[in-house]
Amino acid sequence: MRVIVIGGVAGGMSAATRLRRLDESAEIIVLEQSRYVSYANCGLPYFVGGEIEHRAELLLHTPESLGARFRLDVRTQHEALAIDPEARRVEVMDHRSGALVELDYDVVVLALGAAAHPLDAPGIPVHTLRTVDDVDAIDALLPRDGDGSALVVGGGYIGVEAAENLVRRGVPTTLVHRGPHVLAALDPELAVLVEDELRANGVELRTSTEIQSVEEGEVRLSDGARLRPRLIVNASGASPNTGLARAAGLRLGANGGVAVDAQNRTSDSRIYAVGDGVEKIGLDGEDTLVAMAGLANRHGRTAADVIAGRAEHNSPALGTTVVRVFGLTAASLGWSERRLQRAGRPYRVVHTHPMSHAGYFPGAERMALKLMIDPADDAILGAQAVGGAGVDKRIDVLAVAMTGGITASGLARLELAYAPQYGQAKDPINQLGYVADNVRTGTTATVQWHELPALQLNGAAVVDVRSDAERAAGAIPGALGIPLDELRERLDELPDAPVVVYCQVGQRGHTAARLLVQHGVDARNLDGGYRTWSAGRAAEHAAAETMEAR
Amino acid sequence: MRVIVIGGVAGGMSAATRLRRLDESAEIIVLEQSRYVSYANCGLPYFVGGEIEHRAELLLHTPESLGARFRLDVRTQHEALAIDPEARRVEVMDHRSGALVELDYDVVVLALGAAAHPLDAPGIPVHTLRTVDDVDAIDALLPRDGDGSALVVGGGYIGVEAAENLVRRGVPTTLVHRGPHVLAALDPELAVLVEDELRANGVELRTSTEIQSVEEGEVRLSDGARLRPRLIVNASGASPNTGLARAAGLRLGANGGVAVDAQNRTSDSRIYAVGDGVEKIGLDGEDTLVAMAGLANRHGRTAADVIAGRAEHNSPALGTTVVRVFGLTAASLGWSERRLQRAGRPYRVVHTHPMSHAGYFPGAERMALKLMIDPADDAILGAQAVGGAGVDKRIDVLAVAMTGGITASGLARLELAYAPQYGQAKDPINQLGYVADNVRTGTTATVQWHELPALQLNGAAVVDVRSDAERAAGAIPGALGIPLDELRERLDELPDAPVVVYCQVGQRGHTAARLLVQHGVDARNLDGGYRTWSAGRAAEHAAAETMEAR
Repeated sequence: MRVIVIGGVAGGMSAATRLRRLDESAEIIVLEQSRYVSYANCGLPYFVGGEIEHRAELLLHTPESLGARFRLDVRTQHEALAIDPEARRVEVMDHRSGALVELDYDVVVLALGAAAHPLDAPGIPVHTLRTVDDVDAIDALLPRDGDGSALVVGGGYIGVEAAENLVRRGVPTTLVHRGPHVLAALDPELAVLVEDELRANGVELRTSTEIQSVEEGEVRLSDGARLRPRLIVNASGASPNTGLARAAGLRLGANGGVAVDAQNRTSDSRIYAVGDGVEKIGLDGEDTLVAMAGLANRHGRTAADVIAGRAEHNSPALGTTVVRVFGLTAASLGWSERRLQRAGRPYRVVHTHPMSHAGYFPGAERMALKLMIDPADDAILGAQAVGGAGVDKRIDVLAVAMTGGITASGLARLELAYAPQYGQAKDPINQLGYVADNVRTGTTATVQWHELPALQLNGAAVVDVRSDAERAAGAIPGALGIPLDELRERLDELPDAPVVVYCQVGQRGHTAARLLVQHGVDARNLDGGYRTWSAGRAAEHAAAETMEAR
Repeated sequence: MRVIVIGGVAGGMSAATRLRRLDESAEIIVLEQSRYVSYANCGLPYFVGGEIEHRAELLLHTPESLGARFRLDVRTQHEALAIDPEARRVEVMDHRSGALVELDYDVVVLALGAAAHPLDAPGIPVHTLRTVDDVDAIDALLPRDGDGSALVVGGGYIGVEAAENLVRRGVPTTLVHRGPHVLAALDPELAVLVEDELRANGVELRTSTEIQSVEEGEVRLSDGARLRPRLIVNASGASPNTGLARAAGLRLGANGGVAVDAQNRTSDSRIYAVGDGVEKIGLDGEDTLVAMAGLANRHGRTAADVIAGRAEHNSPALGTTVVRVFGLTAASLGWSERRLQRAGRPYRVVHTHPMSHAGYFPGAERMALKLMIDPADDAILGAQAVGGAGVDKRIDVLAVAMTGGITASGLARLELAYAPQYGQAKDPINQLGYVADNVRTGTTATVQWHELPALQLNGAAVVDVRSDAERAAGAIPGALGIPLDELRERLDELPDAPVVVYCQVGQRGHTAARLLVQHGVDARNLDGGYRTWSAGRAAEHAAAETMEAR
């Protein structure tokens, strides 16, 4: 059996090495267009920034080491030009010799990844940040004399990482992003925390902004700004590389990636496809593009198992993500609120702001957590988290809970590891469960930050139950201040109207709402408290401002 | 309704505050024997060590603040002397005034915790490390002149934390532990890593050792050593405080704790009990003592829900634990291998040694992971982890997976958050799943470290597939060295016998075993590689040495 793997990084290389472990006799040829295989593509931005010091650390394997260990026939600078499924033949250009080769196959694995949308900028070098070659080119262009700046186009994961690392290298960097907020997997009131962090660390961030024109080395942006960057990093979008697949007549999915089944088989049963170039099967069985290294690796392994005759299959893709942005970690999984709204799907939301570990132990950091819940069955639909320590842990826990069918209320009962350095006796995840359960059972009704204006218009009173000092540092306009600890004694100060109470993060608000309801007041708690409300407002404000400026 | 909560820390205070949120009208009296309530008991050792600098940080609430916020009637230095279930009356001693008070009740919640086994040491002050009063006493006794040492008795969580913090304060500290290894929840080959860390940081650790006698300030240990410590911290065991419950005729469980149902109701339907003094319901429905703050808090909340008329109940206790030991984190959940052996229950074990995050990104640390699996249905039975960064995350993920019924092989498919700072494209948890799946499907048969001697006696050859440099730094005696990358070419050097291959952590060994099996060799892989083998051997050796010395 001859297997040709086209693409020698994450998914392709996982397929090739796993297949060898399962089948010592197969002939396995790996074709890679660039000069390197099996490199650390998720590490590339950090070599630009200098956090990864040695270029050699990015190169995990060479064709020689893969040959010795796995008996793989790895051919770099080899480009597959065409696949003939009838003849079972791949046409290959050897860019080192210029020779055109034809290779027969029994099975093909396509692992060609995705590319940024093309960007043409006359007079300015443009590079993506996807290969070792890209990094070498960017590195060579970086202004070493403190003179000259960089422009990053696209505020997705790669764009945000590129901007951070250019700034780390001392290069003044502008990040332009077409949408109103960076990191599309996050809802606005969490994305705005990431945007604040980017700006606080010196990134010149321009959202709702595009390149309008480029002339003689000058970039004109849609917001009127003009820049003369030394280089442009193009991180705008991730379009599946499907030229080869389309020419071979393979079926594409709803979003333009190669369509595969749960075993990574394409519409041609002898051709498999994995990685960023492929449509994943989403949580509702729908086609979805999730460009994540974890899935690429896992699906490469699945393809190898299936080729070796095993009954392996993929689980639906949650779309779990995490990215470090300077001192913050931003992570997400499953459905965002925005996606649920667009899909017209009913949902409940819970916001919390727990400390990463016991507040009395040094180093605790506050995070913002958001949970999307199916009101029909209390199932977890998605989650988002932005903060410092412990964010990745909580998103992982939620990913497993969602996979294991644990309900939102069921999070309350999870027995997580507790010592004061690691969590809280009631872990942030348990707390999410408590809030979800209180909402589900009607113990405390909540109000979302964006629902508040309409409620106020309808005559609801807003009561701030924080301390006077907290209120002095910022409060919701028009709120009546009664600290929680005085509330029982000052019930007569409340107007004869529905009441929305709030505190800093939602916890004291819950206690206040419970107290008021039992005293006959129609009271609801502002979900996530002042923190969520102010982040939501800031996000709206930023979006409105950029709209105005255009 | 009058509810009397006896015990004003973790479980008791969770019950009291939750009950108030659910029932504004109940009269809630909290009786606490010590001078403080709602203090950070898990933080106490770190105030001794100085990491928590200000004593005030330990005191989360005062009777006054709890009165203002939750209308709780909190009475410190009040000791419940007796409960009369017939008359529904508690007899209380007010130690401030010396007055004896009788309080009628509708419901009682017992939250009296556990105590160390009594330890009498004539001429030396002995303190436990359970209350703020304990910490004040220890702090006052600490030798500030660099002269004088401390003795900690008991190598459980509190003992290990006490020893670390005394050393942090500059006090020469001996830790004696009766069992062969510290932290009973860990199996020996993981516990030995913790013991190395304790010794490397200056703790004089003596396992399999007891106090034989104490005379005129001199402690004689069972290993012959004599010490004259300035103070003794008694962290030997955790016996449920059940005097009050027994006198009231409440039923006790199999391990001497108060017996409760899944709603924390004792054998008297008007008396609830929570926390370390109570038997938890274990994974198989058995009685079990798990003295963990997380469960105490959660079960306090359960009791409040039930008292308020809700149908809440507890899940079986996994026994999830975590502790920091200097630069290490040690964590565990569920069944240990030792417990499975004792119970005569069939199991499979997997050891791995993954990096906390991508090896090419700075700061990655290696951890030891161990998974116990039910061979009948591939269910996760338990897990242990010792290492640096990311240990707590992996144990939490495994706790949720176990709760959600995800199988060991199913770990391979979990979609965890990946970026190079947080994990690996194939996360350590996925890797565990891959190994478990390879064992389950017979893809690679494994051998445990303690099974190797018998196999060698029966003629099995051991093949070391690591590099020459690795082998030179330590190898299994009698092993034949053939680096993995040369194995295909050197098959003829293998003896005509069953072969056990090994590498450093088990990964190359797996590739080698696959290769050999397909070439007709009867090959198995040493689970966890040289690292697990050498840790297991060190653990055996240490246990044997202390036995010899006695």
